[in-house]
Amino acid sequence: MKYLHTMVRVRNLEKSLHFYCDLLGLQEVRRYDSEQGKFTLVFVAAKGDEHAPLELTYNWDDQTYDEGRNFGHVAYQVENIYELCQRLLDAGVTINRPPRDGHMAFVRSPDNISIELLQAGESLPTAEPWASMENTGHW
Amino acid sequence: MKYLHTMVRVRNLEKSLHFYCDLLGLQEVRRYDSEQGKFTLVFVAAKGDEHAPLELTYNWDDQTYDEGRNFGHVAYQVENIYELCQRLLDAGVTINRPPRDGHMAFVRSPDNISIELLQAGESLPTAEPWASMENTGHW
Repeated sequence: MKYLHTMVRVRNLEKSLHFYCDLLGLQEVRRYDSEQGKFTLVFVAAKGDEHAPLELTYNWDDQTYDEGRNFGHVAYQVENIYELCQRLLDAGVTINRPPRDGHMAFVRSPDNISIELLQAGESLPTAEPWASMENTGHW
Repeated sequence: MKYLHTMVRVRNLEKSLHFYCDLLGLQEVRRYDSEQGKFTLVFVAAKGDEHAPLELTYNWDDQTYDEGRNFGHVAYQVENIYELCQRLLDAGVTINRPPRDGHMAFVRSPDNISIELLQAGESLPTAEPWASMENTGHW
């Protein structure tokens, strides 16, 4: 038995790839278009980590996807949680749970998939603006 | 950057471990109890695949979790999809998408998390009762 992937549905592939690749730093590793099924699958993964991709399912028909609480989040370890959160913030992404502790943050994808970011190794020293940034919404 | 885990919330830890471990075949690799936070985290993974666990979050306070469509599923490759589906069926689990093609099946966890099962290597030859088994519900 072997883990393959976690699949999430996306309404807008362009916006989603901007979020997952340009901002978060994942890379597209595989893509499959189905003319018949009218969907596109894009697998994105951290570099060197292609064994554990996220599968983005984009149905060409316009759809919206609600959010449930049985699914929690997808978690990634990151090299520098402050730099990444700054990049996300600059791009207009809400940092729902800022890394006040230099260790953990939560953001959400354009489709409200909760993403946990965890600092690799030791927590970074606490620093502003993160240390005094309040939570926003839930995650 | 590195993938860590996918987290799902569970209402009943015992039932969930029965499903994920006894039936599906994952193994518990790590557990964390928080008296203060009143929650238990159990990480389960395929054998030899501990780098990509599923994190089960069990909040001790009684809760129910609704389901949304932005999250799709978690996928595992399995050694013999017929044997696994038979084990699940015998235990009363609905095979929402039976492996009619000897290749792919979908089932749901006790909290309605959709699990995709994919046959390792070549599809198995089509066989009953799977070949003529109808879909049940959605996944």
